[in-house]
Amino acid sequence: MQPNLSKRLYKLIKTQNGVISAYESAAKEQQNVAGQLSLWGEETGDESISDISDKLGVLLSEMAEVEDNYASSLESSRQVLKHIRNTESSVHPTRENKTKITDQIAHLKHKDPTSVKIMTLEQELVRAEAENLVAEAQLTNITRQKLKEAYMQQVNAIIERSEKQQILAKYSRRLLDLLDDTPVVPGAEKPAYDNERAAKEVLIDAEEELGRWEPSQEPYAAPSRLESNLLPSVGNGSVMENESIQNGGHNLSGDGDERGRKSETNASSRSAAHSYDPKVLETAS
Amino acid sequence: MQPNLSKRLYKLIKTQNGVISAYESAAKEQQNVAGQLSLWGEETGDESISDISDKLGVLLSEMAEVEDNYASSLESSRQVLKHIRNTESSVHPTRENKTKITDQIAHLKHKDPTSVKIMTLEQELVRAEAENLVAEAQLTNITRQKLKEAYMQQVNAIIERSEKQQILAKYSRRLLDLLDDTPVVPGAEKPAYDNERAAKEVLIDAEEELGRWEPSQEPYAAPSRLESNLLPSVGNGSVMENESIQNGGHNLSGDGDERGRKSETNASSRSAAHSYDPKVLETAS
Repeated sequence: MQPNLSKRLYKLIKTQNGVISAYESAAKEQQNVAGQLSLWGEETGDESISDISDKLGVLLSEMAEVEDNYASSLESSRQVLKHIRNTESSVHPTRENKTKITDQIAHLKHKDPTSVKIMTLEQELVRAEAENLVAEAQLTNITRQKLKEAYMQQVNAIIERSEKQQILAKYSRRLLDLLDDTPVVPGAEKPAYDNERAAKEVLIDAEEELGRWEPSQEPYAAPSRLESNLLPSVGNGSVMENESIQNGGHNLSGDGDERGRKSETNASSRSAAHSYDPKVLETAS
Repeated sequence: MQPNLSKRLYKLIKTQNGVISAYESAAKEQQNVAGQLSLWGEETGDESISDISDKLGVLLSEMAEVEDNYASSLESSRQVLKHIRNTESSVHPTRENKTKITDQIAHLKHKDPTSVKIMTLEQELVRAEAENLVAEAQLTNITRQKLKEAYMQQVNAIIERSEKQQILAKYSRRLLDLLDDTPVVPGAEKPAYDNERAAKEVLIDAEEELGRWEPSQEPYAAPSRLESNLLPSVGNGSVMENESIQNGGHNLSGDGDERGRKSETNASSRSAAHSYDPKVLETAS
């Protein structure tokens, strides 16, 4: 339980932004290269170079677009990680509050062991521990699901980029094969270029295959939807009755979990759980 | 035949450098993210998050390495394009020289039609035209072969990156599947994490499959090796005898080419061609 937990993730999210910017920049520069290749080819005055480089420019430009879409998917994934970071930030005060009251009790017990304030503080501590217990469960739930969701998104994005660029690479190769690079002797007339139709066909086939592409992987689906309070819908009704909550977490048992995971259809009376919902946590949902 | 031909390619090569820098930067930032993910996971205090994020960091780091190797391959391809640019630069003066002499003759014919200098200039023009004819053939040969080589390299690099990252993506998915994200209720003890062994197995399998990877595509091979003078080995012996060269290119026929492409084994006496090799072109080889 490190105080700098949300800082760690804050940093990761920031660095990830750098990754995304780099891909956006790669895509943009690649688009420029595609255009420049086409222009250069035209100016060589070599009909075959001109046609092939123009069409290769089209395929390179498509690859740049795939790269840009990849950057967008990484950005969506980054947004998902922010949910974890926000929850981490909101859980922190509940940890500090617990520690603060515990310290106050210890201080008072040493200074004035008979003070009536001790009992008040101990009641406060039970409430603070209950609040923190809810917050920790919310954090666990959001962290596991959002981590999985964020990186499943990245994995799917990598697969999409790879599959689409492999299609484009295959047709680029077919296009380059149409360029006759048998060396010529000085003064000899170059054989006429007659692959224009075949080259056009390559582009049409590439577009068509790319258009047919569909994701082979399912997007991430959470095993059980979290309620807006970040707890499983099933557990909400029983939070109040949970013995460990009533004891401020001193008596942790597996019972609550067992119960919680059995009856997933029971989403009754969420009001009880809501009374425990600390304000700080609502900002995270 | 544009004077700014080599400038066009110069620009493309420069932009391509921007593409490469972007990928290098993406790889570097991705390495940082991988490390930060592992550190963050450890600090969550959640055993399953800690283990999965640590191992996911390893796979993300491998992906970053693949990305960095991709950048290196793009750099090799960029170096190949420089051959074309250098040859373009060296061909340009032979074009200008031809134009200059042609202009001088026209000027003199107008100013002093009986000047003996005209005949000298016309002999000079024949030599300049022959020089240019050789240079243009060299440029055609280098341009076609190097363009093909450069982009075949890129295409193979894209395929390598895609295939390797697909392997890593597949195992990343398998790793994420080991993270139980069933929501927990407050105060309930989390079920013990017992996927450490399985997660380790994922990394081992990923390394193994990545290690087995081999390119499915052949690297580019020129159809016929160019000599260091950038002409086909077959044509060198016949450059002097080529009628169109002797006429300074005024009488272009397809004969030289036909001859040149038939007997690829004949690589005799290159000296004749070398006598035509302009100094400017040697810098390009």
